[in-house]
Amino acid sequence: MTDLSLDATGGDQCFEDFVPGSMRTFGTVLVKEQEIIEFARRYDPQVFHTDPVAARKTPYGGLVASGWHTAAMAMRLIVDHRISQVASAGSPGLDELRWLKPVRPGDELSVRVTVLEARRSESKPDRGVVRSLVEVLNQDGSVVMSFKGVSILLCRDTRRTSTAPEPE
Amino acid sequence: MTDLSLDATGGDQCFEDFVPGSMRTFGTVLVKEQEIIEFARRYDPQVFHTDPVAARKTPYGGLVASGWHTAAMAMRLIVDHRISQVASAGSPGLDELRWLKPVRPGDELSVRVTVLEARRSESKPDRGVVRSLVEVLNQDGSVVMSFKGVSILLCRDTRRTSTAPEPE
Repeated sequence: MTDLSLDATGGDQCFEDFVPGSMRTFGTVLVKEQEIIEFARRYDPQVFHTDPVAARKTPYGGLVASGWHTAAMAMRLIVDHRISQVASAGSPGLDELRWLKPVRPGDELSVRVTVLEARRSESKPDRGVVRSLVEVLNQDGSVVMSFKGVSILLCRDTRRTSTAPEPE
Repeated sequence: MTDLSLDATGGDQCFEDFVPGSMRTFGTVLVKEQEIIEFARRYDPQVFHTDPVAARKTPYGGLVASGWHTAAMAMRLIVDHRISQVASAGSPGLDELRWLKPVRPGDELSVRVTVLEARRSESKPDRGVVRSLVEVLNQDGSVVMSFKGVSILLCRDTRRTSTAPEPE
């Protein structure tokens, strides 16, 4: 697996380590007003993301982070704490992304990941597909955003598939 | 609707203007190597997003944009060209987000939006829910990313619901 030439700064977990039902919470990241504004000026220039004064007159009642910025901040926590540096083979996408509550300056976000499903690939027996519920929490424990992510992970023991293949 | 106090720099479309089956393409945005790296250093520091040399030895064969960066670049095009500045009331989320092809430095991205469904709200008759297929295209016309987005839009004629309410 080292032929992926990924940095070995993170976890060394492989497909076999992602057990359905297991849950982990990690973080936090502090949400800063200036960063909300900078992200939004470049990627999501709506007034409730870019102008703290004008945002007060919107339904949000004040500055809120772009939903894509919240996702990006959560991704950083996932990369730092969750993504395997030796076995991660990317993500084809995600389902059911929901922005549930506003994220405001001063909020502290953490991420809770629950493994929903882990399935060995039949067509590519050196890897498996892991589906996880990813929840972004604020300092009050409220879920501000959630999605169901899909990850491809290489297996530690690729020989197992030749004796007991899983259904695709 | 002006009580939302949104900038009037963009479209003035309301719920009624989003007709199922209608399609629009807009953009482009040029993907820059330095911006891929800067975004990824902050939000998605995996080597194939941050290091052009080391990325060559990964399965991607070179630097690729973070999937969240691609989403953010697409969002900027959507804000500039699509989001109504007078009637947009936010988005509760999206479904079926797929990262389909790598996005590389020098790519030029555009966005194609197809309205899938437009449904008047029964509980809040001043607005409706619009579901759209959002596709991010590269300069070859290949879809590099897609999702099904949900938008809440205020109605131009709120009186219509009192005479002919739509099922919720």
